[in-house]
Amino acid sequence: MPHAPLRFGLIGTGRIGQVHAENIAANPDTALAWVADPFVDGARRVADRFGGRATADTDEVFTAGDVDAVLIASPTPTHVDLIERAVDAGIPVLCEKPIDLDIARVDRLRPKVAAAGIPVALGFNRRFDPAFAEVRARVAAGEIGALEQLTIISRDPSAPPADYIAVSGGIFRDMTIHDFDMARSFLPDIVEVSAVGSRTFDDGASEHGDFDTAVVTLRAASGALVTIVNSRHSAVGYDQRLEAFGGNGTLQVANRSTSLVSLSTGDGVETRAPYEDFFLQRYAEAYAAELGEFVRLARGETASSPTFEDGRAALILADAAQRSATERVAVEVSLA
Amino acid sequence: MPHAPLRFGLIGTGRIGQVHAENIAANPDTALAWVADPFVDGARRVADRFGGRATADTDEVFTAGDVDAVLIASPTPTHVDLIERAVDAGIPVLCEKPIDLDIARVDRLRPKVAAAGIPVALGFNRRFDPAFAEVRARVAAGEIGALEQLTIISRDPSAPPADYIAVSGGIFRDMTIHDFDMARSFLPDIVEVSAVGSRTFDDGASEHGDFDTAVVTLRAASGALVTIVNSRHSAVGYDQRLEAFGGNGTLQVANRSTSLVSLSTGDGVETRAPYEDFFLQRYAEAYAAELGEFVRLARGETASSPTFEDGRAALILADAAQRSATERVAVEVSLA
Amino acid sequence: MPHAPLRFGLIGTGRIGQVHAENIAANPDTALAWVADPFVDGARRVADRFGGRATADTDEVFTAGDVDAVLIASPTPTHVDLIERAVDAGIPVLCEKPIDLDIARVDRLRPKVAAAGIPVALGFNRRFDPAFAEVRARVAAGEIGALEQLTIISRDPSAPPADYIAVSGGIFRDMTIHDFDMARSFLPDIVEVSAVGSRTFDDGASEHGDFDTAVVTLRAASGALVTIVNSRHSAVGYDQRLEAFGGNGTLQVANRSTSLVSLSTGDGVETRAPYEDFFLQRYAEAYAAELGEFVRLARGETASSPTFEDGRAALILADAAQRSATERVAVEVSLA
Amino acid sequence: MPHAPLRFGLIGTGRIGQVHAENIAANPDTALAWVADPFVDGARRVADRFGGRATADTDEVFTAGDVDAVLIASPTPTHVDLIERAVDAGIPVLCEKPIDLDIARVDRLRPKVAAAGIPVALGFNRRFDPAFAEVRARVAAGEIGALEQLTIISRDPSAPPADYIAVSGGIFRDMTIHDFDMARSFLPDIVEVSAVGSRTFDDGASEHGDFDTAVVTLRAASGALVTIVNSRHSAVGYDQRLEAFGGNGTLQVANRSTSLVSLSTGDGVETRAPYEDFFLQRYAEAYAAELGEFVRLARGETASSPTFEDGRAALILADAAQRSATERVAVEVSLA
Repeated sequence: MPHAPLRFGLIGTGRIGQVHAENIAANPDTALAWVADPFVDGARRVADRFGGRATADTDEVFTAGDVDAVLIASPTPTHVDLIERAVDAGIPVLCEKPIDLDIARVDRLRPKVAAAGIPVALGFNRRFDPAFAEVRARVAAGEIGALEQLTIISRDPSAPPADYIAVSGGIFRDMTIHDFDMARSFLPDIVEVSAVGSRTFDDGASEHGDFDTAVVTLRAASGALVTIVNSRHSAVGYDQRLEAFGGNGTLQVANRSTSLVSLSTGDGVETRAPYEDFFLQRYAEAYAAELGEFVRLARGETASSPTFEDGRAALILADAAQRSATERVAVEVSLA
Repeated sequence: MPHAPLRFGLIGTGRIGQVHAENIAANPDTALAWVADPFVDGARRVADRFGGRATADTDEVFTAGDVDAVLIASPTPTHVDLIERAVDAGIPVLCEKPIDLDIARVDRLRPKVAAAGIPVALGFNRRFDPAFAEVRARVAAGEIGALEQLTIISRDPSAPPADYIAVSGGIFRDMTIHDFDMARSFLPDIVEVSAVGSRTFDDGASEHGDFDTAVVTLRAASGALVTIVNSRHSAVGYDQRLEAFGGNGTLQVANRSTSLVSLSTGDGVETRAPYEDFFLQRYAEAYAAELGEFVRLARGETASSPTFEDGRAALILADAAQRSATERVAVEVSLA
Repeated sequence: MPHAPLRFGLIGTGRIGQVHAENIAANPDTALAWVADPFVDGARRVADRFGGRATADTDEVFTAGDVDAVLIASPTPTHVDLIERAVDAGIPVLCEKPIDLDIARVDRLRPKVAAAGIPVALGFNRRFDPAFAEVRARVAAGEIGALEQLTIISRDPSAPPADYIAVSGGIFRDMTIHDFDMARSFLPDIVEVSAVGSRTFDDGASEHGDFDTAVVTLRAASGALVTIVNSRHSAVGYDQRLEAFGGNGTLQVANRSTSLVSLSTGDGVETRAPYEDFFLQRYAEAYAAELGEFVRLARGETASSPTFEDGRAALILADAAQRSATERVAVEVSLA
Repeated sequence: MPHAPLRFGLIGTGRIGQVHAENIAANPDTALAWVADPFVDGARRVADRFGGRATADTDEVFTAGDVDAVLIASPTPTHVDLIERAVDAGIPVLCEKPIDLDIARVDRLRPKVAAAGIPVALGFNRRFDPAFAEVRARVAAGEIGALEQLTIISRDPSAPPADYIAVSGGIFRDMTIHDFDMARSFLPDIVEVSAVGSRTFDDGASEHGDFDTAVVTLRAASGALVTIVNSRHSAVGYDQRLEAFGGNGTLQVANRSTSLVSLSTGDGVETRAPYEDFFLQRYAEAYAAELGEFVRLARGETASSPTFEDGRAALILADAAQRSATERVAVEVSLA
């Protein structure tokens, strides 16, 4: 018997909320039931385009009775309370990263989530990118032997506005957190974090004490080392590469080029506009796949969606990186 | 004032008709009004999914009164009559290639089309591929100087069924015709055709006297030479490349790869499954862009859609290639 | 017991003669005994640098008694007589291509060469290029199944001086002849030649009735088709590519780039100065390997050096191409 | 007036000594006068092949009176004494890296070298690699704006024998030292070192307390960050890449492939045997260029050869990396 579509309550209709709304509407296994945003005009626009009822009152999502799953795409400070609300209501939840910027709040919520009978998934969308997922599967299949090194180059096209940086929690909690999770999708058991941060260009980060440039080295329990190279900007466009180095070979993910055309002249060979603009383009397929996997999870099937624990682990690594970069020591961590 | 959507009557609901239906439904400037197919179940399925009323009677499309444009995606032998019907009804028409396999029929229709006040566009979708269009624009902008050579490698992933080949008109009229039009989109004025055909693998072509492998050289009035390399099959997948060679440089279009992942080992570097399967995947954007351009044409705006004359020219080149390959002589042509 | 070095008499000390002199000096299995050139200063300079005695009198090479092999690098019109002289003297000979521009002269010499007990090798150096040789070996090993199409793109960096063109025998005998031999190294039995020539830029060719641009299609006895795309100039540098297309895959040889460096910016990705300048750079390894193979041949070992017959076959194809391009018909050939 | 060739005394005839001997013989501006090695058979073989007189007594090199320059390619522990000997003799010296494994010995020699009137160059050959040198020049020319990040991936094809590792000084002093110098060739003023070492495969390193895998992050005075990723082995072959990331773009050096051939099949695209075996192949041009630059230095011309100070700085960074990796703290350094 085919499943009825999973009815979603979407909370938050900013840029990322709109991506999820579009994917929910396009996926035959899902439908939008409610769209909540205190900025109700945004909720209405999304509901008009992708379905569901709009509301300014988030609580309606949990009490309406016709919501099978909640997707939290509201600002970070609201995540903990909304996850708790979903757990209390017994509704499976997919929450955008990070859970919170404060590990203490996360740890307070942790036992309740662990005890809950419902899935709580975290929106680490990059895990679902076909290229990264392929590399992960091929490493797991032993194609390159034991994994010894993982190198992640991850640069945003341009720095966010200074007022965003001010509340972002810093580069490690805001940007590197994706790379921490990517690292853990290959090597879950990270035991040590060494981070170096710097300010190399004027992006407004310095007035908030943040770094615009960072390198993080993680040590896994296996001894494997992960290197993450970050920058808040990249003249080339969104720079998202990964290289898994094993005893028998290397698997690489290149940037995605948008052009098939090259020009050769006496000066050389050139290809224009090679990379995707930013994450909405680069990870469009990943967002859709993330949703599909969450549907399986919400239905009680086996699914690989990152969990609350994954969200907590990434935050612990981000905190450790912040401390390492500040105190100039390597920081041991325990993710258990 | 914004335009009301252009209401289409779609004739034919085979593979390519379905592509057009989906694009018409997705484009905010177009809508499906009628879907006609003597096999009415096909018409109904398309109408149910993409809108419009289904009919088995093609004539309804022309008489219903609510059709602003006709899209002909029915079998080739019906094209001439349907174009004529559209011209008589004064409805702009976008017709799939080829106009017909018989140049005599095309030439009989030609004066009426020329005298008609309505646009008749031909579905040479590859012109609208972003990569080919970019190269054409850059050649026109003089980036590589005078165009001296154009090299087109065009191979289908696998040969069609023998019964299709039997009615296809042969490789030049069925397959190379796209390449003839591509060549003419760079060098409209072709004056000579030299073709060599061969049978190099057992694909059922031989029992119908057709070639499975061909090389065609075209001479343009400017002296530039075009080389077209065709095969009915390709183990690698759909092979669609082009190289424009000018006095100051070369512009190349590579095949589109579906993978960003490469594996390096002691044996070398490999990338899996590199190319798009076939034209529906490879030219998905081109079909959508073709429709968008036709909308401009139908609205009386300046548009670059290939015309009835382009469809006729491609058929003349195909006929000349067939003759050249059979009689083993170069064949002069006049496309005026 | 190790062999004593093969003592060479080198005839001709132009650009290509100097390449051979350097390779003979560098190869531990060979040594320069005599260097002959009517322009005796050239001979002396070469002998001073690479060894051997210089002479203006070519005949000394054949009579001195200390010459084990002759390398003919003198102007084309002298080749036939010098080969004959070597055959008469019973000295193995490696002669630069072409044997002659006149097939009648070649055919007159042919029975004597066939009857001779000594090897007569032709300097089709490209056969020995590691990349082309690798592709040939892998095709022969069946890696891509039956060979169906061979595509050769071969463009010189710039046109030779007009006075050279005047005596070159035309583009097919002078330039394409390398490609004819390359084609035959994959598909020896060519049965038909279709050629199209054009003049697309002002290189002085037109005043001598020559083409600067050409496309040649060869049909092999197996049905396989070969396409050769030539130009007398190339803004990109020496353009030497080959693609062997078989039922199971494609083997490609790319141009050799001299740079490992690429620059990525917001405008795209570029690599400077990508290709080797010309044949002396591009085929440096090939010339050395050609010599090594000839040493084996001269010693009576099994060797793959191209023969007098290969030289004759290439000239027959060049003549056929000239006729095809002029008379605008396909030309059947018999290379037996 | 042309210079007479610079007469070299070569000390040490191991693998790297032989490379230098060959380059000295091949360079028209240099000649071998003496070849010294306590293992005198080695010295004789080199002298027989490349010129000069062989001796077991190193001292002869300094006393013979016909030596214009000394090239030290003997084991590391001999370097300090031999440099001192050359300084005392007033003979310009090119010494293989490292100066010594003990910074105290280096610092004791330092004032004498600083006061000496003769050039003391260090054999950091990679600086002279054409690709790295090109990137350095283009960064200096401002092509990518301010340099913000430098990423060096540097992996040997396979781990050295355990007994070599035992005396190597560890991965940072033996292997990373090249990368430290490469980093300093872009960013001379390094102020902080953070290193992480690990053992990820069984290469005999562990019994000597060494790492086989390492990541080092350097902070430059400008704020720019350098990341060095090392492994003692690489299944792919010698892995030598570099990426300079600036505010306006990225300059990359790819590995050097030895093959122009690619195979495409239904499974994907592959290129065999892509990388150079090891440093003798990969850096052959660099060794020759290093020698050429030293000739200019020895003649009193302006030259970019790395100096004694560069050798000392690299060792300080290696020591700091060793301490950082052991004590798990970032280590501040002063290279002044």
